[in-house]
Amino acid sequence: MAEKFNYSLPSGFNIELLPGAKRLEQKIMGIMVKVFEKYGFSPIETPAVERLEVLQAKGNQGDNILYGITPLTPDNHDNEESRALKFDQTVPLAAYIARHLHQIQFPFARYQMDMVFRGERAKTGRYRQFRQCDIDVVGREKLSLLYDAQIPAIIYEIFQQLGIGKFIIRVNNRKILTGFFDNLQIGEKRIKECIKIIDTLEKVGETRVKQELEKIGMSAEISDLVMAFINLKGTNAEIFQQLETNFSTITNATFQLGIQELKEVMTGVRSLQVPEENCQIDLSIARGLDYYTGTVYETTLVGHESLGSICSGGRYEELVGLFAGEKLPGVGISIGLTRLLGKLLDLGILQPLSPSPAQVMILNMQSELMAEYLQIAQRLRAQDINVLVNFDPKPIKKQLDYANKLQIPVCLLIGSNEYENSVAQLKNMRSGEQISVPLASIEAEIMSLLRGIPS
Amino acid sequence: MAEKFNYSLPSGFNIELLPGAKRLEQKIMGIMVKVFEKYGFSPIETPAVERLEVLQAKGNQGDNILYGITPLTPDNHDNEESRALKFDQTVPLAAYIARHLHQIQFPFARYQMDMVFRGERAKTGRYRQFRQCDIDVVGREKLSLLYDAQIPAIIYEIFQQLGIGKFIIRVNNRKILTGFFDNLQIGEKRIKECIKIIDTLEKVGETRVKQELEKIGMSAEISDLVMAFINLKGTNAEIFQQLETNFSTITNATFQLGIQELKEVMTGVRSLQVPEENCQIDLSIARGLDYYTGTVYETTLVGHESLGSICSGGRYEELVGLFAGEKLPGVGISIGLTRLLGKLLDLGILQPLSPSPAQVMILNMQSELMAEYLQIAQRLRAQDINVLVNFDPKPIKKQLDYANKLQIPVCLLIGSNEYENSVAQLKNMRSGEQISVPLASIEAEIMSLLRGIPS
Repeated sequence: MAEKFNYSLPSGFNIELLPGAKRLEQKIMGIMVKVFEKYGFSPIETPAVERLEVLQAKGNQGDNILYGITPLTPDNHDNEESRALKFDQTVPLAAYIARHLHQIQFPFARYQMDMVFRGERAKTGRYRQFRQCDIDVVGREKLSLLYDAQIPAIIYEIFQQLGIGKFIIRVNNRKILTGFFDNLQIGEKRIKECIKIIDTLEKVGETRVKQELEKIGMSAEISDLVMAFINLKGTNAEIFQQLETNFSTITNATFQLGIQELKEVMTGVRSLQVPEENCQIDLSIARGLDYYTGTVYETTLVGHESLGSICSGGRYEELVGLFAGEKLPGVGISIGLTRLLGKLLDLGILQPLSPSPAQVMILNMQSELMAEYLQIAQRLRAQDINVLVNFDPKPIKKQLDYANKLQIPVCLLIGSNEYENSVAQLKNMRSGEQISVPLASIEAEIMSLLRGIPS
Repeated sequence: MAEKFNYSLPSGFNIELLPGAKRLEQKIMGIMVKVFEKYGFSPIETPAVERLEVLQAKGNQGDNILYGITPLTPDNHDNEESRALKFDQTVPLAAYIARHLHQIQFPFARYQMDMVFRGERAKTGRYRQFRQCDIDVVGREKLSLLYDAQIPAIIYEIFQQLGIGKFIIRVNNRKILTGFFDNLQIGEKRIKECIKIIDTLEKVGETRVKQELEKIGMSAEISDLVMAFINLKGTNAEIFQQLETNFSTITNATFQLGIQELKEVMTGVRSLQVPEENCQIDLSIARGLDYYTGTVYETTLVGHESLGSICSGGRYEELVGLFAGEKLPGVGISIGLTRLLGKLLDLGILQPLSPSPAQVMILNMQSELMAEYLQIAQRLRAQDINVLVNFDPKPIKKQLDYANKLQIPVCLLIGSNEYENSVAQLKNMRSGEQISVPLASIEAEIMSLLRGIPS
């Protein structure tokens, strides 16, 4: 054991979780799965590795984020094909659909909560591996806008259940922005640039956005108009009202189609009973990625705006049909779980769970009684109680200390006295109270005690 | 869309799962998590990537299985440090323990069900990425043999719940084999070779094992004795009996210690109520890997012996303390889930679940009623029923066809007639029966119907 190793984590891979944090992540993922499935989304599996050609296909974010993989032993390179780790779940979804086109039913609603990898430069707060939780619905040729309406309902239910405080899902439609800029006759090439500038609003502030717009040739007057437009405030109904009165002169077809789409989506959102305080129109939501063509979403945690969007996505027309060679419009969102979990823990918005799932620890009071301890443990486990039996014959204080460090709520002490009298000492580790209960009804006693202890 | 891509899976990465198979995998993992936690095991997270130095540390299986990773853009290489993807969960566990030595409580019982990567030559049936489900308990300095006894109880409960037919957990102790061979005075170097040869018994058969033993210098007489020894049959008590009578002349201390350890373990297994028909001593179980020092396990699916062991592991003394520089003995097992799932599906032992988690599909009978459909969907979801609303206004037959392909058990048909009369048509998609039920009690009606339909 004299050998010394540098066993530290590679930079950018500091995603390790201690048991309490990992248990919290599992709980969050459990909530997500339950909600995704309530809306009929199915899980799928795709490998972490794809052919480089697939990951480099258009719609990706450039080679700059790719991590290549190669067997260390040259003999194991089976051909000249290059491969890389997936950097998101959308390009693999497109490849998956092409690979299984005739085994899939459309509309195809799938979720996937998987690790993705980014071969970017290491930088504080930037992960080279992280878990992304995605849902997408993909249709053949057409996809109803009601799928866009379902997305906020799903996000709402998840964040509501997570109990992370007030959040706002902000919705817009790319066609409104595209049409609005088109109407300004700034030239078609500038439209995408303008949308990318708008997308930085939250990060850089209004003054800077206005400057950037003017830098690409917009007059101060026009940039004022843009700022007024993306800053439209009010209830969803009031915003539609303003669009129809103050901006009624914009006859641009894309603009009008965008408004119509957004109306249909927001009507669906209302039918799905998402409270308006949690889902609002925000004309400044643009999303940076080129591939969005309609509805776009961002989600803000109120009071923690600096976190940026904790759940984003939108509608795309061309992305997923890329490999299948068909028109497969889709709509989806992504939650960057690794980053979100880290931030929620850092800010104290959520706390790690207890480091052990055990609800009961049976102490080793006398090694001769071990067979009895094991049998009692099995009786409790048969009632779905999580039980840890302490095998080490340490002093009782040390055993209780171990239970406390693992935050196990109940300890069971059975010495020879107790055993002869067919009883056990039940210790509530939160209150310190200890009661004697008959061994015959130990399951019921423990279940009743556990019900009274907040987990 | 004219561009053509080769979007096929890279060879060795054919681990994709369609929704029904992925749902089955999730169900299996759910069972595992529940059992692991019943015994007090906690989940942890480690990255997929470690420093090459960590993965090359002793106890690994050689560079031959490593997959190196490198950012595609040379600018993103932040230093000269080499990194690779993890090939198992044990070496990362050792590094994790060293990294978090003072945040962990010992004995430390953890589970991890993660993807591992092997940069081996592509070969039929060999995966370059697969999911491995591992549990290990690690102690500081010492670790009670009762932890070894718990392992078969955990395996038993999992495979029992999976419903995959009869299985046998076969248990041995490396010290028995080591001591037995030591006693033959074949030279210390030969002991490990002999154990590796014994490990191939199931694959190559008795004749071949005997030949191999003789090839390394054993006489026919001695190899007969070896074969007789590893073939000892009988109940666990009978095997101990034979060890104590027929082999009582073997006074080798390691041999005797091995027997004593195995007895303690099997006594614990009995106290934990694992039926003897599911957990048997088998002196031919050797395990190929060098690092096992005591108890070893393999699990055979009866009638499908050619699958090999579906769950294996054992006790190791040195492996996990490697980086921490302490003695951290451990015991654990691993289930190669990707391979096991593939085989169970291929053999028809398990079937994929339905491709959709949806229990109810609400048909789009009249788009004007969509707001009502959405509200009914939310009422059902509030009762934890998984609901898919069909947004596309296709002919009813096509909508029912979609529900059938997704194997959704119940459809809800509400046309304008039904809506006016505040009723819905409930269609049992398994039996074809259709009944009219009041909308006011739709939740209860559907729950009662679902209870009668096997999922």
